[in-house]
Amino acid sequence: MDKKIIGIDLGGTTAKFAIMTPEGEIQQKWSIDSNVLDDGSHIVPDIVESINHHLGLYGMKPEDFIGIGMGTPGSVDQEAGTVIGAYNLNWTTLQPVREQIETGTNIKLAIDNDANVAALGERWKGAGENNPDVVFITLGTGVGGGIVAAGQLLHGAAGCAGEIGHITVDPHGYQCTCGKRGCLETVSSATGVVRVARTLAEEYAGDSQLKQLLDDGEEITSKDVFELAQADDALALMVVDKVCFYLGLACGNLGNTLNPASIVIGGGVSAAGEFLRSRVEKYFNEFTFPQVQESTKIKLAELGNEAGVIGAGSLALQFA
Amino acid sequence: MDKKIIGIDLGGTTAKFAIMTPEGEIQQKWSIDSNVLDDGSHIVPDIVESINHHLGLYGMKPEDFIGIGMGTPGSVDQEAGTVIGAYNLNWTTLQPVREQIETGTNIKLAIDNDANVAALGERWKGAGENNPDVVFITLGTGVGGGIVAAGQLLHGAAGCAGEIGHITVDPHGYQCTCGKRGCLETVSSATGVVRVARTLAEEYAGDSQLKQLLDDGEEITSKDVFELAQADDALALMVVDKVCFYLGLACGNLGNTLNPASIVIGGGVSAAGEFLRSRVEKYFNEFTFPQVQESTKIKLAELGNEAGVIGAGSLALQFA
Repeated sequence: MDKKIIGIDLGGTTAKFAIMTPEGEIQQKWSIDSNVLDDGSHIVPDIVESINHHLGLYGMKPEDFIGIGMGTPGSVDQEAGTVIGAYNLNWTTLQPVREQIETGTNIKLAIDNDANVAALGERWKGAGENNPDVVFITLGTGVGGGIVAAGQLLHGAAGCAGEIGHITVDPHGYQCTCGKRGCLETVSSATGVVRVARTLAEEYAGDSQLKQLLDDGEEITSKDVFELAQADDALALMVVDKVCFYLGLACGNLGNTLNPASIVIGGGVSAAGEFLRSRVEKYFNEFTFPQVQESTKIKLAELGNEAGVIGAGSLALQFA
Repeated sequence: MDKKIIGIDLGGTTAKFAIMTPEGEIQQKWSIDSNVLDDGSHIVPDIVESINHHLGLYGMKPEDFIGIGMGTPGSVDQEAGTVIGAYNLNWTTLQPVREQIETGTNIKLAIDNDANVAALGERWKGAGENNPDVVFITLGTGVGGGIVAAGQLLHGAAGCAGEIGHITVDPHGYQCTCGKRGCLETVSSATGVVRVARTLAEEYAGDSQLKQLLDDGEEITSKDVFELAQADDALALMVVDKVCFYLGLACGNLGNTLNPASIVIGGGVSAAGEFLRSRVEKYFNEFTFPQVQESTKIKLAELGNEAGVIGAGSLALQFA
């Protein structure tokens, strides 16, 4: 039997697992709840137990695996195999994740942060078509990202490479949680879209259901904004246009700087699909020079939730 | 005798040569004029002749060399070893540079564009301190750049990676020769600095020697602007502040995206030295989040004109 890899995508709610071939074909998958009680001290033991349990179930041994790859929230030290500052896991102190998992499973572990492994997944088996130069942007509660350049995942000097959500798209823009102003995240995350809607609504006087909802004090979501825009609500269309302007500016500068084969947009906000993509592309073309327009494509993510577990698995290939 | 490398930095005026150790220590250097007549058809034969002549002079043979590395203007196809569109050399058609030089010298050749090899040089032996993640920006007639990330020079999908001069720093800014608006080059190249000076002078009413010179129709240079600013000319200080705002914004977003250990600023405009660097750094800090401020440094280039020939030489190490 050819050796397999295991991918783990750890999140604040669940940990997803997959047993895959080295070619990235998922053969088994399962998930467990993330028990964040007691400073998250149950999380890694639960992962170890779940792996050992499933290996028993499938009649597999540690020697059947090339390794385990794992994506996690927080700041990851890939060399040391440790994680710190994963607040949705209640991990505030340094966690020796690799040591615990390797000791508990007798399989080698490689680890990286969740946005990076999602980028690896989309690049390997998704919209990135395994190209050596791919940028991934995830538009969710926040805006995250990962960059693969010349075939390598970038980490930078202090692990901050790929922090696309903190590209400054408006020097005089909204205050961001990171401490500075005008970050992409403040205008294109799920909460950012709503923020832009509230701002534009204040000055908007025409007919609009979105305006009505906001004036009535209703709670709205970024999904509402995109749905209303697709139903031709004038204010919602203005909001989407502004959000796509900022996304196109950020993508344009990623294109001018890195000239990736594709910039792949994923995460909850990207559920708006082609309606979003085509508008980002319009501004991307405005903010890039001709050779980049021709060679860098704006694409939608294809793997959805599986990007993380597949990309995590790919980390284990370094042990092959 | 340990084998050596040869670096060639080809420009529109001269071609510079250096014989170096594999550690980057220059042992011999010389230069020849670039003869751009007859569609630049003499350039490569002149280079071949000059190399063979100097090897004879120093009593060296092709076998004494690991290889030749070369930086050139224009669009370079590294795989094919060809160059096209180097207008200052009058190379408008495809030039089989590698084939000609390898045949003429019996030494292997690697080739890349001039901004990229200067980046390699500053990263290897200059301000980059041989760190795996270094960005180089050159502020000259235009604005060029090169990016080394995870130890590799980035080219991107169509060779446009590192085109830092075309980062959009003002979506409603000046028209650029590349076809779009608000490129960094339009406001921070030597001509860009003068352009900013002319614009700000129109609205400026106070006392200023720079204002006087412009109103009198004098030709001014970016050097004049920086000298007047250092002599406390109020308008010149405003111009420098605006130029550094844009440079700080572009460097900030390179920091947020790539988190290099350093962003190295070179080229003619960087002759303004610490006066320029400290102001770029001020805005860089405004446009980056704390971890990037701490781990990415803004530095001045250290190698001057030698960056190109040293970086070009380093390309030859791939044959070692």
